[in-house]
Amino acid sequence: MREMRQPKLPLYLKVARQIEGQIRKGALRVGDKVPSIRGLKRQQGVSVSTVLQAYFWLENQGWIEPRPQSGFYVRLPFAELVPEPDFQASRNVPTEIGVGDVLNEVVSTIGDQSKVPLSSASAGPTLYPNRKLNRIIHKITREDPAHSSRYDFTIGLTALRRQIARRSTVHGCNFSPNELVITCGGIEALNLGLRAVARPGDVIAMESPTYFAILQIIESLGMKAIEIPTHPRNGMDLDALRSAIRKHRVRACISITNCHNPLGFILDDTYKKNLVALLTKHDVPLIEDDIYGDITFDGIRPKTAKAFDTENIVLLCSSFSKVLAPGFRVGWIHPGRYLDTVTRLKFINTIASPSLPQLTIAEFIQSGGYDRYLRGLRTSLANQVQVYSQAVARYLPEGTKISRPAGGYVLWVELPETIDALKLYRAALTQNISIVPGLIFSASGRFRNHIRISCGHPWSDSIERALATLGKLCQ
Amino acid sequence: MREMRQPKLPLYLKVARQIEGQIRKGALRVGDKVPSIRGLKRQQGVSVSTVLQAYFWLENQGWIEPRPQSGFYVRLPFAELVPEPDFQASRNVPTEIGVGDVLNEVVSTIGDQSKVPLSSASAGPTLYPNRKLNRIIHKITREDPAHSSRYDFTIGLTALRRQIARRSTVHGCNFSPNELVITCGGIEALNLGLRAVARPGDVIAMESPTYFAILQIIESLGMKAIEIPTHPRNGMDLDALRSAIRKHRVRACISITNCHNPLGFILDDTYKKNLVALLTKHDVPLIEDDIYGDITFDGIRPKTAKAFDTENIVLLCSSFSKVLAPGFRVGWIHPGRYLDTVTRLKFINTIASPSLPQLTIAEFIQSGGYDRYLRGLRTSLANQVQVYSQAVARYLPEGTKISRPAGGYVLWVELPETIDALKLYRAALTQNISIVPGLIFSASGRFRNHIRISCGHPWSDSIERALATLGKLCQ
Repeated sequence: MREMRQPKLPLYLKVARQIEGQIRKGALRVGDKVPSIRGLKRQQGVSVSTVLQAYFWLENQGWIEPRPQSGFYVRLPFAELVPEPDFQASRNVPTEIGVGDVLNEVVSTIGDQSKVPLSSASAGPTLYPNRKLNRIIHKITREDPAHSSRYDFTIGLTALRRQIARRSTVHGCNFSPNELVITCGGIEALNLGLRAVARPGDVIAMESPTYFAILQIIESLGMKAIEIPTHPRNGMDLDALRSAIRKHRVRACISITNCHNPLGFILDDTYKKNLVALLTKHDVPLIEDDIYGDITFDGIRPKTAKAFDTENIVLLCSSFSKVLAPGFRVGWIHPGRYLDTVTRLKFINTIASPSLPQLTIAEFIQSGGYDRYLRGLRTSLANQVQVYSQAVARYLPEGTKISRPAGGYVLWVELPETIDALKLYRAALTQNISIVPGLIFSASGRFRNHIRISCGHPWSDSIERALATLGKLCQ
Repeated sequence: MREMRQPKLPLYLKVARQIEGQIRKGALRVGDKVPSIRGLKRQQGVSVSTVLQAYFWLENQGWIEPRPQSGFYVRLPFAELVPEPDFQASRNVPTEIGVGDVLNEVVSTIGDQSKVPLSSASAGPTLYPNRKLNRIIHKITREDPAHSSRYDFTIGLTALRRQIARRSTVHGCNFSPNELVITCGGIEALNLGLRAVARPGDVIAMESPTYFAILQIIESLGMKAIEIPTHPRNGMDLDALRSAIRKHRVRACISITNCHNPLGFILDDTYKKNLVALLTKHDVPLIEDDIYGDITFDGIRPKTAKAFDTENIVLLCSSFSKVLAPGFRVGWIHPGRYLDTVTRLKFINTIASPSLPQLTIAEFIQSGGYDRYLRGLRTSLANQVQVYSQAVARYLPEGTKISRPAGGYVLWVELPETIDALKLYRAALTQNISIVPGLIFSASGRFRNHIRISCGHPWSDSIERALATLGKLCQ
């Protein structure tokens, strides 16, 4: 028998196949960093361009992915992950928030530190630059001992507004510090923005699903929500939004444009442009929530819808809570043409924001530390989301679908239709596991077989056990 | 001619008259400390009891006054100070806030640090215990470096709630830490309290004049104010309040019970008891603002109305902004039976309060530092209010009347009727002097010839010049 000779592999492919083999055998696991270009060059005695070719091949095959400033990491192969959640049309009529009681029940358990933390959309404490922030705090207390002995300007400290204005070019804007108002977290920004443009009884349009606190704010202000059918990757159906505006006299629209909570999408520039044009045409202000915009996994800072806002009708809300220090409670809003009203409401609501956290963040950004730190955070989160996704696919029942977030912390998980996610949430609590049931992301109680899983805490055995338990509870 | 022999004076009176003479000649001025008991004993070679007799005589004559833990100070003699503002009946009908524009105009200038600071109700930065607070901040950053890396409980840090609960006995209460919600300053407490008990269109009863931000909150929530005739020393006329409740279905009542802003009174226990009984009978919640309760000039901590609240209808609001660190933005509320609603609103409004300021205050109170520090602050403020009062009486036109605050920072000044205080406010601004015109303390534009003067900053030449300028502007 004549032995078939294998065709000679190009060198780069030989290198790539070796790494593929290591991944298949489990020597390299999802989330692991593959050897650096220089390392591989030395190890295999090949040129840099051969290594690069090998990596590009592996990336194209879906085995690895680049992380900015950090190298290449093993990713979950496309084919092996379960499908994404489907697009589901929603009832398109204004509604009073119908899940108030469940909302309150769930919210009271989010962030309970005695539970395995799969609910709160925040990172594990070790991911934040605590030591660096503390060094800055020391410096401020030395140089300005009376830092907290005054009421600050209602609109916030100039030093911080200046840094936020300076960084606004990264998302396509060009703010002046005097156009900004510092708030007590992103949530106060959303409150002030909404109160500035709408009154009790008004109809507010939004994505479905959307961040549950937005629904709570609308409910607490006596407004009504209209859920616009929302594609899990492409955002609100703009035709449906247009017809809702015409039919129901929508007073404002709220959109989470980048790293949507809970869906995870980043809207593309054309969409953002069209959204702003549509709203401008109908004179409907847009409250844009960009709180996760700095933590996209590919490291490319997406534009805000605000970047396409020629008429100043966008109220852009953001915060440092998700990316730097939740306990600082420092957010901000660029209220566009509603600056005066928002400033007045800020005075009435909390007078001013706390001084020391503002000073600390301003110094951290100015020193360049913030942008350096962000790179590492993005990589960690991208990695964690991968690992969590894989485990969710492994442990949750067949038929489960998982979102593909482009940034942020959260996975949106569609369970088989037979599973009641509210029951699952309650059962999980008895096992000291905290998740968020999907129906609180809807004003009308949709998403009854969905859950949101936060991937903010570094992967650990206890989290893996919790996901395994969740899987068992589903049965 | 036979010389009349003077009757021999008792020894204590001789000592007392010497000091009286020093005051009359100006060697000892208002606000100065008189020699200590031991000092005078040594200086005059008399016994302690003689010195004490002398001081009691001087106190009875109105020349000096005791300050707790601190000694005796020269005060403005009763007879020489101008009268107090008169009681003025007010229209007793619900009204939408009619001074919104002026309110906004004035509020935007309060706290402008480029002006002589006679407007903002806060103390000069040097009066706060900045160094001690910074030492505690250092300690916390060492012992708990991840202090701000979590969202805190919505109701606030347990350590701080425990200290506030422990201290609640000083104002006649006995709270559990779990009954409290930490807020972003006293103003958020007032907001949450009001939103928990009333809805747009509801009628809210309050003192007249009252703290202008209360009017702004009511306006921003679409509620109506009814001003209850208020005596400058004795508070709201309870008969008028009763009839307002019956006629206008008052939904809630707001009262600043201790060291009223702007009137300065402390309501007595019987009044507080009657107020709570009246409101309980008619099922009207009381939002009690006790933000100045810890800084009474006589050092006696007055009770809160909450202390007489058997049915849990009082929502007690307070804060550390006025007494410790305005820039910390830490206030609190005991919402009584509205705890669940207030907690939910707190989550919606700001999620949680900043962590580091809460930890710092908790430690400061626990160490005993807070109560020690309060004694000194009370003395300083009492002193400053005296000195400011004297200067206001000296520089402002004849016919001016001045309140006699029992604590806090502010003087309520009634100018002759011919003077338009809003014009005076605007004219003063052009001279870089910041005061607050009286009409923003009323929903219906009363107090057009009144101003509020803050005495928070230590007396200085520039403040004296500013008051002299104010006097000239009145002409």
